Amino acid sequence: MPAPPPPPGSATVLSPGATIGILGGGQLGRMLALSAAQLGLNCHIFAPEADSPAFGVAARHTRAGYDDEVALAGFASAVDVVTFEFENVPVSTVRFLEARVPVRPGSKALGVAQDRLAEKQLARSLKATTAAFASVTSHAELVAALAVIGLPAVLKTTRLGYDGKGQAKLTAMAGSEAAWAAMRGQPAILEAFVRFRCEVSVVAARGLDGSFSAFDATENEHRHHMLHRSMVPATLSRPCADEAVATTRRIAEALDYVGVLGVEFFVCTGERGDTLVVNEIAPRVHNSGHWTMDGAVTSQFEQHVRAVAGWPLGSPALLGTGAEMLNLIGDDAADWQGILQDPSARLHLYGKAEARPGRKMGHVNRLRTELGSHS
Amino acid sequence: MPAPPPPPGSATVLSPGATIGILGGGQLGRMLALSAAQLGLNCHIFAPEADSPAFGVAARHTRAGYDDEVALAGFASAVDVVTFEFENVPVSTVRFLEARVPVRPGSKALGVAQDRLAEKQLARSLKATTAAFASVTSHAELVAALAVIGLPAVLKTTRLGYDGKGQAKLTAMAGSEAAWAAMRGQPAILEAFVRFRCEVSVVAARGLDGSFSAFDATENEHRHHMLHRSMVPATLSRPCADEAVATTRRIAEALDYVGVLGVEFFVCTGERGDTLVVNEIAPRVHNSGHWTMDGAVTSQFEQHVRAVAGWPLGSPALLGTGAEMLNLIGDDAADWQGILQDPSARLHLYGKAEARPGRKMGHVNRLRTELGSHS
Repeated sequence: MPAPPPPPGSATVLSPGATIGILGGGQLGRMLALSAAQLGLNCHIFAPEADSPAFGVAARHTRAGYDDEVALAGFASAVDVVTFEFENVPVSTVRFLEARVPVRPGSKALGVAQDRLAEKQLARSLKATTAAFASVTSHAELVAALAVIGLPAVLKTTRLGYDGKGQAKLTAMAGSEAAWAAMRGQPAILEAFVRFRCEVSVVAARGLDGSFSAFDATENEHRHHMLHRSMVPATLSRPCADEAVATTRRIAEALDYVGVLGVEFFVCTGERGDTLVVNEIAPRVHNSGHWTMDGAVTSQFEQHVRAVAGWPLGSPALLGTGAEMLNLIGDDAADWQGILQDPSARLHLYGKAEARPGRKMGHVNRLRTELGSHS
Repeated sequence: MPAPPPPPGSATVLSPGATIGILGGGQLGRMLALSAAQLGLNCHIFAPEADSPAFGVAARHTRAGYDDEVALAGFASAVDVVTFEFENVPVSTVRFLEARVPVRPGSKALGVAQDRLAEKQLARSLKATTAAFASVTSHAELVAALAVIGLPAVLKTTRLGYDGKGQAKLTAMAGSEAAWAAMRGQPAILEAFVRFRCEVSVVAARGLDGSFSAFDATENEHRHHMLHRSMVPATLSRPCADEAVATTRRIAEALDYVGVLGVEFFVCTGERGDTLVVNEIAPRVHNSGHWTMDGAVTSQFEQHVRAVAGWPLGSPALLGTGAEMLNLIGDDAADWQGILQDPSARLHLYGKAEARPGRKMGHVNRLRTELGSHS
């Protein structure tokens, strides 16, 4: 079967002054818009929430639901390319836009990333290791899957989960009824529990021309199912780091990806040294890449803007010898004055009015580097 | 005579979520707004021009003239502090605002910087060297001044001059009539022509608490009376660099300055080595400080935002061992694709639609540094 013809405009390269449409108005959209502005590009944010942090830094915004086809059609006609800043935009929204304007990355990548089953199947098809998994659409299937996969295991809805939501850990067969009930009838995936030494991620970009560029692999610490800290370099052997980047590249190529993506891996210690297990694919700029704003020649946000604009990718080289990113969650941001007084700290705040518990309010980057002279 | 009481609100320290009002909507205002956004602050731009580059990156803007008191009063009531991005804002505008809201830096600094005579007199009063100068308000005064100062000399209007506008070089007494005519009756200043080896500038900040922080002195090359290239480090002896910073500090303190300022110096080679001559004071972020966006821990824009917010100043330390900034003027920006392909180049474009000759369209920074590993 011949490949379908590329959609109209798929090869579009933007010029300075062009407009990038961004679906989603959170902090990732805000930081994308700031990077676009630095390169002379305009942004148009499309988001349903009135207090979207990205609205205040973009030339235009549309406040409407992702199912509002009149608003979407107007948005499509006002922008030169569309991207998204979070993976829970409906695939139908992206397909609607794709018929009108290039969307980078496209609905294919979004659809796979929204479905844990498709994500695992893709990784397996690319010869990457994943946790043992099984599709679960009934309690009977869960019981059968547990017999194969064993305990402990994690049951997750296949769709719309992040930061630990829609998950149930199973440590005994007796818990299967409650775990299945917690899925509320949604299709689910049972995953073997992976014992890992640490979690790392690769944030990388694929250009419109197929070029590929990865930032240094990042080691991540979580607290309460949310990213707490990211560090570069990761405590990872060179072959292991190379494998993580190579797997990320195969995933990006399989998805015809254009833009920045993040792939999370568990690092497991075995008899033959460290091995990597693919955990999750994020079809967007990634929290674990925020260190690049101060620690790399090109930030992940500029890199994504370059990719979706059809421009050459920038250098991912590390500035100095290492970097650390600390998330400011909820009340963590209340110490902004202390952070500002620390000359090694680079404060980033997202302009959110209310510091609710579990809400990402900002982050702090620190560079490990030999500094030059200063007065 | 006792000092007058400080104006109301003069000690105001902003919290994240507060709004900085910026007079002027050019590229400096745009880059200030981008830095403010990164720190969780909002900006409200006030400028008369419809196509102001800063409008598209700020939460709010007011398009009105600097003499529109209704618009200014509304602006003052909508912001927590006011600053300006160019020195030709009328002092009366700033005085009007100062009665309503803190303005940083204030009308005192603005007034001195707008008047070449006051600027030179201030520098002299602080024991800094300036070119020989004389006030000229008639052709007769010009002839008398030339007799003292000699030839060659430069006649300049005392007010509203930048990038070489409103200036006449005098190489013979016979040119005095034409030079005076070129002033169009404006008060002028005659300055001895300074033979200099190079020009350097110090970009520095003074905080609300009187703290002071200077970036490394920068060496500047001009073309057609406009800044072309800035380099760090400057070819300047350590004592000379220290003197430049100390002079800048004395100027900032004499002006009760809050914010970033730029002081330009001529470096003259004499029998006792290099000497410094104060050329000009810019009461704002400065084109020769654009390298700090990629080459220093804190950019001059963030530093100005910190100062006007009443926050601690950031570290001015150089990243790596040196940096270079190249202005993109007029058609220079047409090579944006070539610049994007150079991994050592950091492109900044200002979002201006039309590349008129002499118009600053963007700049390119390059770091001289040892880079870390990358994939």
